[in-house]
Amino acid sequence: MEAYIMDEKIDYDGSQISSLWAYSAFGIQSDSIVAFRGACDVVPDHMIDLEDLRQNESIESPDMLHFIVEHFDSTDLKLVYARQRLFTTIFASVLADEGIEVGRDGDDLFVNGKKLSISIASTSAISQKIHFGVNVTHDFYGNLKEAGMSEERAINLLDIVSEKYAFEMEDIEADLRKSRQLGVF
Amino acid sequence: MEAYIMDEKIDYDGSQISSLWAYSAFGIQSDSIVAFRGACDVVPDHMIDLEDLRQNESIESPDMLHFIVEHFDSTDLKLVYARQRLFTTIFASVLADEGIEVGRDGDDLFVNGKKLSISIASTSAISQKIHFGVNVTHDFYGNLKEAGMSEERAINLLDIVSEKYAFEMEDIEADLRKSRQLGVF
Amino acid sequence: MEAYIMDEKIDYDGSQISSLWAYSAFGIQSDSIVAFRGACDVVPDHMIDLEDLRQNESIESPDMLHFIVEHFDSTDLKLVYARQRLFTTIFASVLADEGIEVGRDGDDLFVNGKKLSISIASTSAISQKIHFGVNVTHDFYGNLKEAGMSEERAINLLDIVSEKYAFEMEDIEADLRKSRQLGVF
Amino acid sequence: MEAYIMDEKIDYDGSQISSLWAYSAFGIQSDSIVAFRGACDVVPDHMIDLEDLRQNESIESPDMLHFIVEHFDSTDLKLVYARQRLFTTIFASVLADEGIEVGRDGDDLFVNGKKLSISIASTSAISQKIHFGVNVTHDFYGNLKEAGMSEERAINLLDIVSEKYAFEMEDIEADLRKSRQLGVF
Amino acid sequence: MEAYIMDEKIDYDGSQISSLWAYSAFGIQSDSIVAFRGACDVVPDHMIDLEDLRQNESIESPDMLHFIVEHFDSTDLKLVYARQRLFTTIFASVLADEGIEVGRDGDDLFVNGKKLSISIASTSAISQKIHFGVNVTHDFYGNLKEAGMSEERAINLLDIVSEKYAFEMEDIEADLRKSRQLGVF
Amino acid sequence: MEAYIMDEKIDYDGSQISSLWAYSAFGIQSDSIVAFRGACDVVPDHMIDLEDLRQNESIESPDMLHFIVEHFDSTDLKLVYARQRLFTTIFASVLADEGIEVGRDGDDLFVNGKKLSISIASTSAISQKIHFGVNVTHDFYGNLKEAGMSEERAINLLDIVSEKYAFEMEDIEADLRKSRQLGVF
Repeated sequence: MEAYIMDEKIDYDGSQISSLWAYSAFGIQSDSIVAFRGACDVVPDHMIDLEDLRQNESIESPDMLHFIVEHFDSTDLKLVYARQRLFTTIFASVLADEGIEVGRDGDDLFVNGKKLSISIASTSAISQKIHFGVNVTHDFYGNLKEAGMSEERAINLLDIVSEKYAFEMEDIEADLRKSRQLGVF
Repeated sequence: MEAYIMDEKIDYDGSQISSLWAYSAFGIQSDSIVAFRGACDVVPDHMIDLEDLRQNESIESPDMLHFIVEHFDSTDLKLVYARQRLFTTIFASVLADEGIEVGRDGDDLFVNGKKLSISIASTSAISQKIHFGVNVTHDFYGNLKEAGMSEERAINLLDIVSEKYAFEMEDIEADLRKSRQLGVF
Repeated sequence: MEAYIMDEKIDYDGSQISSLWAYSAFGIQSDSIVAFRGACDVVPDHMIDLEDLRQNESIESPDMLHFIVEHFDSTDLKLVYARQRLFTTIFASVLADEGIEVGRDGDDLFVNGKKLSISIASTSAISQKIHFGVNVTHDFYGNLKEAGMSEERAINLLDIVSEKYAFEMEDIEADLRKSRQLGVF
Repeated sequence: MEAYIMDEKIDYDGSQISSLWAYSAFGIQSDSIVAFRGACDVVPDHMIDLEDLRQNESIESPDMLHFIVEHFDSTDLKLVYARQRLFTTIFASVLADEGIEVGRDGDDLFVNGKKLSISIASTSAISQKIHFGVNVTHDFYGNLKEAGMSEERAINLLDIVSEKYAFEMEDIEADLRKSRQLGVF
Repeated sequence: MEAYIMDEKIDYDGSQISSLWAYSAFGIQSDSIVAFRGACDVVPDHMIDLEDLRQNESIESPDMLHFIVEHFDSTDLKLVYARQRLFTTIFASVLADEGIEVGRDGDDLFVNGKKLSISIASTSAISQKIHFGVNVTHDFYGNLKEAGMSEERAINLLDIVSEKYAFEMEDIEADLRKSRQLGVF
Repeated sequence: MEAYIMDEKIDYDGSQISSLWAYSAFGIQSDSIVAFRGACDVVPDHMIDLEDLRQNESIESPDMLHFIVEHFDSTDLKLVYARQRLFTTIFASVLADEGIEVGRDGDDLFVNGKKLSISIASTSAISQKIHFGVNVTHDFYGNLKEAGMSEERAINLLDIVSEKYAFEMEDIEADLRKSRQLGVF
């Protein structure tokens, strides 16, 4: 699994959740996590969570850290959701290491009771994808700045979290290659 | 998903990791998490992790909290391992809520640098299973008592963690039923 | 599995066969069977069965009972077709209980040699769906009225059949959680 | 799918439910339904349904029609159970055609309130299997003789039902090869 | 698996790679390999390989042999790619039998160092497909004529290769129905 | 995928086909191909191909090259058989490069009409495995020595073929990560 951290900023408009974005943009031909910083403004056509569409919710932020995960080893919805939740707990634990306590409710992180992150997971016929975005700054939602994190340390999260997730996935792949199948009662 | 907390103590000898144990013992006919307290002494025949067998490691503890998870919705190894890791992070977060900071390395929890837990995940042709055990007391491994948790509060973890895991699984099932499939670049 | 019977009439135009219709229309976040009464007029864009398109067949009826099944537990074509056939036999057996003998050929029911029902099953990347429609009245196709069923009893089928199918699915889920894996010769 | 009707009688002792029995016994190298007549006496080692083991139930009959189905196209438990239920409805409909009304409860058929049949379905790592057995005669369970069916007609069921099931499976395979994938709301 | 060799020439424009083309064009309701002769000019909308799109490559040939494979038994990307590679080796071995030595690099065949063939494999939610095209003549790419094959013998390849691939698939299906599951160390 | 070539000779007795052998013997925690030289004498308990058991065939050779492939990414029988056939064609093409023409029939290679190789593929609940063995010398079966290959060159095949197979698998994984999903007619 390749972790790729973009140097330049780009905005997340929802197109990056499409399968094969990492290949199209960077020629990546492995499972990958691509991380970058930028604003967030998702157009309805790219809204994957129908709840947002039903509630006419806008998904906007002036400044976020974005993580785009793609796995081609399976198109199982249950698996990509378990991976999304695992990603969320990894992010929370990295923040805890940085001294910022966050609460988790499913795939949402909260800081001081305010929603810090957005996330979606789904599949196409060829891959699984996860988007996870965290506010660096925001006028009314939770954000890293308000939580006391400097911009520099915030940017470092792109790398730290991506590496942790990639390591977790590879660690799982190694672990499952040393376990016997179960007996049956 | 049914959470079933045993009133009586039983020892974990590795037989409980077999598929259909929950049905055999309690007649449970749903995906389940069964939790109980007891010693741990796994006989080699029931060792699923070949690393333990290769290293002639004994898996023993005088007093543990045990959680036995069984899913019949899939026999995908990748999925049961992702679920195992998610369970581990849930357990860690419950301890954090109780004021006990633990470190996580894969499916292992550590307290003050000492290994607090053991875990294994695997599949048969019919189900996925996870065992997760945490020392209540132990002479040299990490344990909840040494970490400052009273016996009473420790026992409560059987219920708290089981409910949290069951809720997480149901929450995932609900979430994946409102997400559109992905476009492709 | 949730059975949801609509009070109002709506027409089936083929859009209801799309994945996530039950969530979009009613916020249902579980596997579901939604039943309603209404006319049927499927536009070509929503024709799933290419045979109908190839033969330029119209799929029209002035008054039908409609059942829309959605499963998110698998996207296996073989499974949704087996479920569709099972649904068809359940419908036939309910009619038999009401004193109306019907013949079955695949996913089609016949009464007095006339086609009584239409059905389609397929998958997207995220779910399985089945549509099953039965004529309440019709000028030349088989229909419940002509078969001797009162309008009131016909409407009751929405509930009876939906409950039977939901029960069958849950019964299967319970049954498969008490069966050992097979030996091999 | 091959339907193979045995000329000689053999007893069902549970060994026939093992994967690859059809190959071992007859060299069949396709998905198959093998039908034969014989007594039934399942030894505990071959009991697949743990409920029977838990209740210390014997599975015995002096004279049964047996159907052994094996599919190698999938090892999905949900699919083999859907197929088992479908087989059960096919058997019921054939009896109805013969003028014998039976009730169905899951994978059990009843005649005059007495249990007429036994069945089990499960998987190994390589195939799905179903056993379905129907009493020709029996002292206290439901049986075809008591239901008014002559021995000759009973024996014909071996062929009729096997052909119907094989046809249904092939019909499904043809049907799923003309249906477009679903849109998503 | 049905092998269908078209008598008339048609051009490959990429639309034939869509799922259900064989049904739409010929009413084929089985897994199939359809072979025909014709030019090749793939419009960008039908380009499956994003590498071609990224490099603005045209996929053109005045005269090719085309093979269109469709499998409905699985939508696993790994499987359709393994099958594509197997098809490529079968094609190479048929040419070797005809006295023409070709090199293989993945899914590409080379003759005298020049690219002889194009190929793509992918899945939709309902089927797997493979396109394999070989130049009969070409101005600068490798082609059968230049390799010394007469037009008549070239055309015969449509039939020979299709039959070989169909046989290989059926042979695999028979083989896997006589192998026991593995033990575990 | 790791290619591991053993320095010492060991005999193949069929135990090496069990899942997790590579981990047990060498601690390998990735998909792998292990190659070694040694005699072959498979005891009935380890015979996977029931045809051998039925025909009371011995599987013996005084001197063979052995290749043991294990994949944990899937337990699909169809996939491991496609991979086995692909391995067989890779082996044949390497021999062709060495100037030795062999015929292929399924998973068997022939030289001068004599069977040169044996092979089996199957799955457990946790992995796929392939064994492929080629006679270096043999009294009546085909063998590399008789085909004109020196012992030294024969031994080199352990490395050459293993690397080629591992490369092919990785090449496939890269290729499937740049292909769009299919449209549907």
